[in-house]
Amino acid sequence: MFTIERAGEALEAVRAGTPLIQCITNVVASNFSANVLLAIGASPAMVDNTEEAGPFAAAASGLLINVGTLTPVSAAAMRIAVSSARDAGTPWVLDPVAVGALPYRTGIARELMAYGPTAIRGNASEVMSLAGEAGHAGRGVDSVVLSGDAVEVAQAFAARQGCVVAVTGEVDYVADAKRLVGLGNGHALMPRITGLGCALSALVAAFVAIGEDAWAATASAILVMGVAGEQAGASAGGPGSFVPALVDSLHNLRPEALVRTGRVLS
Amino acid sequence: MFTIERAGEALEAVRAGTPLIQCITNVVASNFSANVLLAIGASPAMVDNTEEAGPFAAAASGLLINVGTLTPVSAAAMRIAVSSARDAGTPWVLDPVAVGALPYRTGIARELMAYGPTAIRGNASEVMSLAGEAGHAGRGVDSVVLSGDAVEVAQAFAARQGCVVAVTGEVDYVADAKRLVGLGNGHALMPRITGLGCALSALVAAFVAIGEDAWAATASAILVMGVAGEQAGASAGGPGSFVPALVDSLHNLRPEALVRTGRVLS
Amino acid sequence: MFTIERAGEALEAVRAGTPLIQCITNVVASNFSANVLLAIGASPAMVDNTEEAGPFAAAASGLLINVGTLTPVSAAAMRIAVSSARDAGTPWVLDPVAVGALPYRTGIARELMAYGPTAIRGNASEVMSLAGEAGHAGRGVDSVVLSGDAVEVAQAFAARQGCVVAVTGEVDYVADAKRLVGLGNGHALMPRITGLGCALSALVAAFVAIGEDAWAATASAILVMGVAGEQAGASAGGPGSFVPALVDSLHNLRPEALVRTGRVLS
Repeated sequence: MFTIERAGEALEAVRAGTPLIQCITNVVASNFSANVLLAIGASPAMVDNTEEAGPFAAAASGLLINVGTLTPVSAAAMRIAVSSARDAGTPWVLDPVAVGALPYRTGIARELMAYGPTAIRGNASEVMSLAGEAGHAGRGVDSVVLSGDAVEVAQAFAARQGCVVAVTGEVDYVADAKRLVGLGNGHALMPRITGLGCALSALVAAFVAIGEDAWAATASAILVMGVAGEQAGASAGGPGSFVPALVDSLHNLRPEALVRTGRVLS
Repeated sequence: MFTIERAGEALEAVRAGTPLIQCITNVVASNFSANVLLAIGASPAMVDNTEEAGPFAAAASGLLINVGTLTPVSAAAMRIAVSSARDAGTPWVLDPVAVGALPYRTGIARELMAYGPTAIRGNASEVMSLAGEAGHAGRGVDSVVLSGDAVEVAQAFAARQGCVVAVTGEVDYVADAKRLVGLGNGHALMPRITGLGCALSALVAAFVAIGEDAWAATASAILVMGVAGEQAGASAGGPGSFVPALVDSLHNLRPEALVRTGRVLS
Repeated sequence: MFTIERAGEALEAVRAGTPLIQCITNVVASNFSANVLLAIGASPAMVDNTEEAGPFAAAASGLLINVGTLTPVSAAAMRIAVSSARDAGTPWVLDPVAVGALPYRTGIARELMAYGPTAIRGNASEVMSLAGEAGHAGRGVDSVVLSGDAVEVAQAFAARQGCVVAVTGEVDYVADAKRLVGLGNGHALMPRITGLGCALSALVAAFVAIGEDAWAATASAILVMGVAGEQAGASAGGPGSFVPALVDSLHNLRPEALVRTGRVLS
């Protein structure tokens, strides 16, 4: 069972462990994702070229693969990195940005899945499309499906893949083969800033790098982001001031705040 | 004739329409441009690889092409995207960053013009150079010419190209073959942050994606940015705090604020 | 001898001179580095493709080379740029991000050194590794050595290379063949934001572009960043709000503030 206390322990463990997180991510979200990782106590390293991606993935604590601004060159680095991560036992997270809406990246993301991600995090359209459900492709990077409508597909997908699958939206769901939890924190400004989901996937990579139980680690990362987002939203004057406020909240977040305001739905 | 009321209606129409704006832009300005688009109510998608740029341009509401960090690879994606946009009737905007100062990008930008941009937005040096006027090349990304000195060239260029040409600077001018308007809003901190012009071109793409009249849509976008910039400048302590303040202002901007402080000069 | 008064004069000279600084830097830090350069009064230009990097380096006031997200393509542009800078006498700065931790970039950085950088700035692990000392490789982008333990190596390296070598950390050291200065400003949040060191190297490029004495110019840039960082840290609520506060501080910094709070240690 997932409890808020576990999320608090996971937060402290990430801070104590300073996991080294390799990111092969999109150019839009790279700065924000690195700052989010630093704020939570991880050490980000954007090592994304074909020459270095493999050996670094073998040594890193965790790896993020995000297909947001995929190119044939970055796809090659991703293949090298996930192959190395699999062989070395490095946990890794797949963020299937806009998969379903665009056939090229959908093919690459499916190919990368064969290397056994530890967790997948996307919106409902992305997760359903990655799972092979036709007819739910998003509009650009936005989902056209509610997260609740993707829960069954997500859980079956998690069982088939043998990994954690997280569908985020107004309610966030985290599934593995046998377990499911819903998380209810968040703020209306979160979808109004670019790269929020990308940065969340980076956070998931930091938590699965440290946690024994990838399902609980993924849920912990999502709860942390949701609570920090609520705090930031309470003080922000709009999406512009929300960004620095969110990074501050992540940096200052204490387990007690999770207990006080976290919403675990099931 | 362009009126502030039209800009207010255009702002509301963008918010209501949530245009899907594909950006093939430079790596420096991509995050800021995406956040500016989200703040105004558009949905940005940085789909810039050769595999996906074409089909996405056919489906998007609007397309931005910005040559700020051009490479041979991104130039290929740009060609594919503008060709697809032309065939599909997708409105598109060209931002000729540093054209004139650098022969390589000047050649590419001229080549892209053959695909019929809906609007071109640049500083005076960029627009004069793109129009073929020798001797006005900028210093890096900065203009060495005042916007007012480029007005005649801009209008002739607009007539010849059959598109909207906007020259921004201390005063902003928007021309098509027969119409010209000057816009007087702005703040001294605007040229002190990177990517302001790039983000403005993204905003123009969102407005021409929705508006029937590309000239009025372009002027509306520029007025919106100028008024939001003035608001942000009034509260900012420097260029650092100006960035989040500007995004907040764009998010919170109401037509009444345009009417109250907008300056349409002609 | 280095004095705070010299740093104040250097700051004013950069503001008066508006140096045009070409940056071939990593995608994570490009936006922040450009904003830091603008805040100090320089004009940044991220001209980093193989077609334009050479001619631009010949005309620019200064050049920054940062290997943070090196690729074979960007390495080619770097070679072209430094070769052109050497021939044209353009001062240039090398930032050896993660050199030592990754053999590929270590090889490229050594190759670039042959073109005679004006200054090198890195953390202790990077500088020691670049200087050929084995066994001090960092963990990702983080140093595992204190800056004070790298001083002797840095000074010998500076003498051998005939350039300025700066090792930054809790105390910052700037060496050339015969001179050494320690600088004691800074704030605990500085290593908690991404790209701080990268932006500092960009600042060094702006100062060596203007200053006659590259050693004093490098020390001035580092003192300016340290003092601005202290000011920002005093008002920031965390690493998120630190970023805009730092850019504001750089923009508003006056020589008197350097005199009042600068700490020159030797």
